Amino acid sequence: MPPRDSCHDAVVKALIKDGWIVTHDPYTVDWKGKTLFIDLGAERMIAAERGSVRIAVEIKCFIGPSPVADFEQALGQFGLYDGVLSVVDPDRVVYLAVPDDVVSELFLEVFRELIVDQRLARVISVDLDREEIVRWIPSSPTPI
Amino acid sequence: MPPRDSCHDAVVKALIKDGWIVTHDPYTVDWKGKTLFIDLGAERMIAAERGSVRIAVEIKCFIGPSPVADFEQALGQFGLYDGVLSVVDPDRVVYLAVPDDVVSELFLEVFRELIVDQRLARVISVDLDREEIVRWIPSSPTPI
Repeated sequence: MPPRDSCHDAVVKALIKDGWIVTHDPYTVDWKGKTLFIDLGAERMIAAERGSVRIAVEIKCFIGPSPVADFEQALGQFGLYDGVLSVVDPDRVVYLAVPDDVVSELFLEVFRELIVDQRLARVISVDLDREEIVRWIPSSPTPI
Repeated sequence: MPPRDSCHDAVVKALIKDGWIVTHDPYTVDWKGKTLFIDLGAERMIAAERGSVRIAVEIKCFIGPSPVADFEQALGQFGLYDGVLSVVDPDRVVYLAVPDDVVSELFLEVFRELIVDQRLARVISVDLDREEIVRWIPSSPTPI
């Protein structure tokens, strides 16, 4: 199993604080003889008659020396997991969980066109100190 | 500048053998204060009245210990470069150049749905020993 990212626990606590139940840690997917490890599986109940929303969350702490290389790796993992889950578990929505300062500076500033316009990844922005979700990009999968 | 991948020269020779002129090695893109290095820029003349076709090629040799990790990195680089070039140089088409055995086993077998159906990356499959292009996925950008 790959090593956990350093902000793993803060992301778990932020999801729980937001009403999510962490059901898998990690969430594994078997695919043609290979096992993919996505950091978390989680679900949240919505109105009783509508059941629950399920997500898979890859946690990216951006602790490497090159933010652009970390961004590339995050995009690639998102693409792989999103592509595979769209086949094997299409109701589970994939997100990257990223520290909110990285989201502000890199995802919504430098690479805004790729994230907001082209939608190359879905992102949960997490305040690691407060252990709280700041925003979902695009908007939260749970209806208000 | 990042280190060259070990199959760099074979890919260059294969492109030249296929009628391409390598115009940039590397092809650099300035983007909001950051410089992106894509391995090659190349162009090929088509019928005189239609000018030339231009491509940017990221060379991925798949020499790491984990083919899936290399695949993720390749997907991420493709997504980043394709996303940025669609804004700054929309007529230049981005490709990954990959050894043909890796294309056969990984891109067209294990992750076929992602590459062929979902089109998460464009790929040039290169026979490194013969220094020849085997196929373009999807088809070649130069009309017959």
